[in-house]
Amino acid sequence: MSRLQLPHDAKAGPTKPEVRAVTLDKLGLRPTDHFVDVGSCTGSVTIEAAQRVRRVTAVERKPNRLDVTKKNLAANEYDADVTLREAEAPEGLPEDADAMFIGGSRNFEAVLDHAVETDVDRIVMNVSRVEPTGAAIEAFRERDLLDEVVQMQVSHGYELAGATSFRSNNPVYIIVGRRDAGGLD
Amino acid sequence: MSRLQLPHDAKAGPTKPEVRAVTLDKLGLRPTDHFVDVGSCTGSVTIEAAQRVRRVTAVERKPNRLDVTKKNLAANEYDADVTLREAEAPEGLPEDADAMFIGGSRNFEAVLDHAVETDVDRIVMNVSRVEPTGAAIEAFRERDLLDEVVQMQVSHGYELAGATSFRSNNPVYIIVGRRDAGGLD
Amino acid sequence: MSRLQLPHDAKAGPTKPEVRAVTLDKLGLRPTDHFVDVGSCTGSVTIEAAQRVRRVTAVERKPNRLDVTKKNLAANEYDADVTLREAEAPEGLPEDADAMFIGGSRNFEAVLDHAVETDVDRIVMNVSRVEPTGAAIEAFRERDLLDEVVQMQVSHGYELAGATSFRSNNPVYIIVGRRDAGGLD
Amino acid sequence: MSRLQLPHDAKAGPTKPEVRAVTLDKLGLRPTDHFVDVGSCTGSVTIEAAQRVRRVTAVERKPNRLDVTKKNLAANEYDADVTLREAEAPEGLPEDADAMFIGGSRNFEAVLDHAVETDVDRIVMNVSRVEPTGAAIEAFRERDLLDEVVQMQVSHGYELAGATSFRSNNPVYIIVGRRDAGGLD
Repeated sequence: MSRLQLPHDAKAGPTKPEVRAVTLDKLGLRPTDHFVDVGSCTGSVTIEAAQRVRRVTAVERKPNRLDVTKKNLAANEYDADVTLREAEAPEGLPEDADAMFIGGSRNFEAVLDHAVETDVDRIVMNVSRVEPTGAAIEAFRERDLLDEVVQMQVSHGYELAGATSFRSNNPVYIIVGRRDAGGLD
Repeated sequence: MSRLQLPHDAKAGPTKPEVRAVTLDKLGLRPTDHFVDVGSCTGSVTIEAAQRVRRVTAVERKPNRLDVTKKNLAANEYDADVTLREAEAPEGLPEDADAMFIGGSRNFEAVLDHAVETDVDRIVMNVSRVEPTGAAIEAFRERDLLDEVVQMQVSHGYELAGATSFRSNNPVYIIVGRRDAGGLD
Repeated sequence: MSRLQLPHDAKAGPTKPEVRAVTLDKLGLRPTDHFVDVGSCTGSVTIEAAQRVRRVTAVERKPNRLDVTKKNLAANEYDADVTLREAEAPEGLPEDADAMFIGGSRNFEAVLDHAVETDVDRIVMNVSRVEPTGAAIEAFRERDLLDEVVQMQVSHGYELAGATSFRSNNPVYIIVGRRDAGGLD
Repeated sequence: MSRLQLPHDAKAGPTKPEVRAVTLDKLGLRPTDHFVDVGSCTGSVTIEAAQRVRRVTAVERKPNRLDVTKKNLAANEYDADVTLREAEAPEGLPEDADAMFIGGSRNFEAVLDHAVETDVDRIVMNVSRVEPTGAAIEAFRERDLLDEVVQMQVSHGYELAGATSFRSNNPVYIIVGRRDAGGLD
């Protein structure tokens, strides 16, 4: 029921709608924000952010994925000024971002270093594998960015013999950072 | 990191942030919507909706909870025209709502009947107990409203002996309806 | 790593190993028990019980499934006296069972009635769909059998790009009953 | 409904019944096994194993916990020859164990080394924190022990306003190893 249109798909698939909704909530986007999407893939987060902030930069190392981002963007309405960059982050990252989404664990330490150097206010990272989750929590903590970690497990109902059974998505970790965070409780 | 301010609390507690984020995403709110919050409690959904639509009606049968909704609303910025009504739904429900959130299972069949009669476009209901979840899915299905059912299980990281352990919230069912829905897959 | 051998498969598939392990634990089987498996399917519960009790009766309405139960039994070692019956429960149920496993929701009210009439001491039922779960909890409660309800969500690690991601099984409800139970806490 | 009696409690609390049931299933205990419980705590795993194998060695570094193990053992029936050792593993571990349970992440690399040197056939380790989970998976993999990783999330029903709501235990990882394992799928 979200109004997001994603006619084009990338091989890796988009962030699942429920995880994306929580991710965007944790990013606390404001109309004045410059938001940066690190690894834009299908563009689903880029598009939803472009409907909420003044400016978005999407950085994606794979040209075919950047193309999917571009096409999906074109299928949606938004007011933001959007820049698409084919680059492997931290290359291509802007110097004045307010909020950052990191969709995978590639180069995440260098990306976090860039975020700290350029005073990014809010950072959310999604990870599904357990080893990089531990490493990412540690990297957020070491940089005084660690604010919250959430594990989400979502199951979808389907009809089976006249009643409702559930199919489960894989669990995902959402790591939430902000500048000068105090760590987990 | 959400910008929502909830200085006042009701005994029942607010919808958890992650469940609220998914609920709002499923409601697919548009700036032109009249949104109705059935059982506004702390007002957390009312407030977030008031930041996205033109008009909100919050209906709450308990005067102390309605007071909490009112005070929490006052602590936040929003542009919508908001009406608070002390009433037990379906009493007090508007005749022209576009989207409806039902926070509990009280009177839900009569509330759904009102939604169908007044052509509400999108309806989301949260339930935590298993028996009313089954009954609610059935009620949505019978009224051609059933579009999606999601079970969400959220766990929050906390620091334990230098690493990250997780505390789990109770699982919640989110039932998503829309007018003339085709049922679950 | 369980020593259970299941060379033959039924269309419905066996109870998942982790759910079966919890189910057997909740059944609290004793060497002197007569255990009855209602809907034996692949026979996985029948076999594990046959390694722990003196006598097992497996009742299965589908001949092809009963045949799978028989073949899988033959692939395992056990000491119990095992009777296989092609019947639709409550038909075919013994009059002197101590513990009963109900693998699905078919006819469960009549099966529970038979259990009450014949003084079955411990009963465990697995359900995956939410509507029959609610109905089954209610049926256990009405017969003073309701002792515990557990929802289990199990995910299995798999290797993805050198680290460990997780694939989730569908959530399952395990309803635990015993004669003269006091209900849930 | 398990027949396990645990009249005495340790501060850390016992392994939860459902996690213990799956852990014991994964250990695949045989009557001829010598089983070693590393960090016996309340003794719950020690006791259940003592009802299935010929010999159990429980190693526990905290004297008060070892005392709880001893008292809880005395409250249960079992046939195994049980040895309790106050020691910090790998000290105190036997040289001829067939199956090993590791209840926490303390010294786990040295414990695994000892298991490899002494040809332990089956090893199960429970971890709740995400960073040591990653490290433990890695340690099992490096020693050709990694066979399976399971995340379990268990919720318990309780009565709320005449229906059944669920309270969730914290998620737990169960790492399953065996000698010369082939790794995860």
